[in-house]
Amino acid sequence: MRFLKLFALVFTLIFTTVLTSQGQTQSRNPTAQVLASPTPTPAPLPPPTVRIDGYRVAAARIIGAALTSDRAYTRLAYLTDHIGHRLSGSKSLERAIKWAVTEMKRDGLDNVRAEKVMVPHWVRGEESLEMLAPEPRKLQMLGLGNSIGTPADGISAEAVVVRDYAELDRLGEQVRGKIVVYNAPYKGYGATVMYRHQGASRAARYGAVAALVRSIGPVSLQTPHTGAMAYDPNQPKIPIAAITIEVAEFLQRMNDRGDRPRLKLKMEAKFLPDAESANVIAELKGTEKPDEIVLISGHFDSWDVGQGAHDDGGGCIVAWEAARLLKELGLRPRRTIRVVLYTNEENGLRGGNAYRDAHRAEIPKHILAIESDSGVYRPEGFGLVDTAPPQVRSNLQEIAKLLSGIGADGIAADGGGADIGPIMREGVVGASLDVDGAHYFDIHHTPADTLDKVDPRELALCVATMAVMAYTVADLPEPLAGN
Amino acid sequence: MRFLKLFALVFTLIFTTVLTSQGQTQSRNPTAQVLASPTPTPAPLPPPTVRIDGYRVAAARIIGAALTSDRAYTRLAYLTDHIGHRLSGSKSLERAIKWAVTEMKRDGLDNVRAEKVMVPHWVRGEESLEMLAPEPRKLQMLGLGNSIGTPADGISAEAVVVRDYAELDRLGEQVRGKIVVYNAPYKGYGATVMYRHQGASRAARYGAVAALVRSIGPVSLQTPHTGAMAYDPNQPKIPIAAITIEVAEFLQRMNDRGDRPRLKLKMEAKFLPDAESANVIAELKGTEKPDEIVLISGHFDSWDVGQGAHDDGGGCIVAWEAARLLKELGLRPRRTIRVVLYTNEENGLRGGNAYRDAHRAEIPKHILAIESDSGVYRPEGFGLVDTAPPQVRSNLQEIAKLLSGIGADGIAADGGGADIGPIMREGVVGASLDVDGAHYFDIHHTPADTLDKVDPRELALCVATMAVMAYTVADLPEPLAGN
Repeated sequence: MRFLKLFALVFTLIFTTVLTSQGQTQSRNPTAQVLASPTPTPAPLPPPTVRIDGYRVAAARIIGAALTSDRAYTRLAYLTDHIGHRLSGSKSLERAIKWAVTEMKRDGLDNVRAEKVMVPHWVRGEESLEMLAPEPRKLQMLGLGNSIGTPADGISAEAVVVRDYAELDRLGEQVRGKIVVYNAPYKGYGATVMYRHQGASRAARYGAVAALVRSIGPVSLQTPHTGAMAYDPNQPKIPIAAITIEVAEFLQRMNDRGDRPRLKLKMEAKFLPDAESANVIAELKGTEKPDEIVLISGHFDSWDVGQGAHDDGGGCIVAWEAARLLKELGLRPRRTIRVVLYTNEENGLRGGNAYRDAHRAEIPKHILAIESDSGVYRPEGFGLVDTAPPQVRSNLQEIAKLLSGIGADGIAADGGGADIGPIMREGVVGASLDVDGAHYFDIHHTPADTLDKVDPRELALCVATMAVMAYTVADLPEPLAGN
Repeated sequence: MRFLKLFALVFTLIFTTVLTSQGQTQSRNPTAQVLASPTPTPAPLPPPTVRIDGYRVAAARIIGAALTSDRAYTRLAYLTDHIGHRLSGSKSLERAIKWAVTEMKRDGLDNVRAEKVMVPHWVRGEESLEMLAPEPRKLQMLGLGNSIGTPADGISAEAVVVRDYAELDRLGEQVRGKIVVYNAPYKGYGATVMYRHQGASRAARYGAVAALVRSIGPVSLQTPHTGAMAYDPNQPKIPIAAITIEVAEFLQRMNDRGDRPRLKLKMEAKFLPDAESANVIAELKGTEKPDEIVLISGHFDSWDVGQGAHDDGGGCIVAWEAARLLKELGLRPRRTIRVVLYTNEENGLRGGNAYRDAHRAEIPKHILAIESDSGVYRPEGFGLVDTAPPQVRSNLQEIAKLLSGIGADGIAADGGGADIGPIMREGVVGASLDVDGAHYFDIHHTPADTLDKVDPRELALCVATMAVMAYTVADLPEPLAGN
């Protein structure tokens, strides 16, 4: 084992010394794509003020250790296989939080604690969709998070299928008393998710009694995708559920042929009283400037289907394991590295907001906040918020060169994350761990977000990437933002 | 419309005249792969005895008409959307049969009839799988066709996961009283389906109380694949169900960590008394040798999930539409083209056997039997049974040149089909419509075998391919097998 580590160290040392490819400027990261606005040609950056030569040995040790450890995968396996999915308010999320606190203390991390957050407690209950006419047929569905339920005997009405809001608006009052089905082809998550998020109220405005939305994803094997919806307070609340691409296309064909499909939707979904939950926090306390913070994070809650493996058990394990690995290697930086496993990202963002509120005084001391919430596929680098100061961007590009040997040296034009959004809006520079996003939305919010989709080696590369960046930024003798 | 047809005619005429690429000798067709045995280097074939120049105009008309008609897709849509899946013994199969007979008569085909076949009537009922310990968890499953059910309160037992039969045999009596889980990685359908087919009895031999089998397919989004199983009469009958790849990998991990997962399997599956069904038959009666038959076929039954679109609604429509198109074009060949939509391919093969029995006297008059049961993807040509006489192979290769313009001119080294198997064993030369099989087993026997997976253009190309081959073989002045 020692020999293996030594070998890995030498190997990665050579790699990180030899390879210095330029960082990418276009993100292939799906979350970054969601957040990115069209960017003008970027102004030339100032030269970096940081010097990375002194960090090559540390980077090599980190990468070598990450790639020879199975700790990240083993922990993710425990989280997903034994604890399972972790919806806000659920027993399993509560259990995950207790487990993480215990284990983080065992890891010897500093200031391990669970910071109480009250979270919404939405429960799905039983649910079903069937076509009553012209032929009886059971149809695959999955209720959307935050939706209200139906009356106990369901809602039965004719379906009207539209491709987009424009078509809905043209129909207008013709959908009164009907179930509106949104069959919007997937054009990327950011461009399509509005039907899931706002579809219910947009249909309710015209008197629709329920809504169904084609699952937000590029492929399907009868795969329903759940996710959060929200009600416009000015419209009546109607229930909404996802249907698979197959069912959406089926209803489209029925609609287009004039078959007037009549559907029956049943959902027991409802909110229980808010539940107690927590953000889990652990630190590697800084040696010289312990009050300055580099925050690395994921969200510990998930949807109530699948295992929440990529979304976002993996992201949590990456942040946590990055800190544990540094601790194990005796790499304690000048500034504090703080791991935050946020609660309630999926259907409320109470964790991110509570962190901002509880740590308001510290916010100016957050040097950088990184969130990993795009899956734990092969890392490509980081997405840095487009409003980041040019000197910070220049310096992060320089530091990322330490990751060129594992191909994770990109600094994309934009980035950030939902949970760190509240502190970013208070001025903290935010970034995302960017990964190969080719297959994330195949499984996103579905029963198929399971551990078998996680490649242990890619997960280890994510840990290495996060740890090298967090350590270097936290240890810089000079300020990240220049003098 | 007339202009379009003329354009298509001229276009395809040019293509089929100009292009004369050689037929392929290796099949990419999945069914052919299942059936194929290792073949030695083939002996050189005799020169063809048939002349195709006289068929170029007909081929061009057929291809042009197929590619400008939506009839095949429209009919497949009615079959799948309105009638739905069609398990043997089901009301929907009965309805499909009546519909086809009515429509075929309306098409003006000859001798349209439903030939009675008694079929097994297996019903699935309610079914579920859960893990009881170490954590409670619902697990995705789908019972296998022909399996017995469990007692009403299910079978609860510890799971033992094996990768293959060798591992099961090593464990031997250690699986007594347990549920055997086969987690065999997919190595092609033919190489893996034995776990589905024989897994129950192999496990029962060692005293297992139930069996679960990883779905036979290359990819999964929590996608269970059903399919037929069979019991060894010398072993106790135990219930068996498919689980998804995700669940199989989950149980493998639990098993390998020593977590001793305890499962509860509930299945109401059972056989009802045999039901009346039928093979649907229609003909284009030959002008000169009406007693000589070119048989083109698919199977009308499907599993009780999805829509049976590729398997094998599409194949049935291809055979049927090929005949209808020829009728519409006034292309009545010298010999009879007979369309057979077999019943009960999936779980009994009673249709194929009944056809052989009912048509025993005619069997020597079957010049060629073609089955389309590999999905209706882009056609590549035909798979010809490896025992076909060399002169037949040489002549079919020659005829297939008429299809080079649509890339469907391959004659693969082997082929055939389950339904035509009984008459092939009586000496009839059999062939399969070969298609691009890249994605067939993604959806095979799953809820995702739905019409949206069928490309209307690829379906039309299949019709064209089948019609050109059937017409030419049926119309040859000389015998297909040479003089």
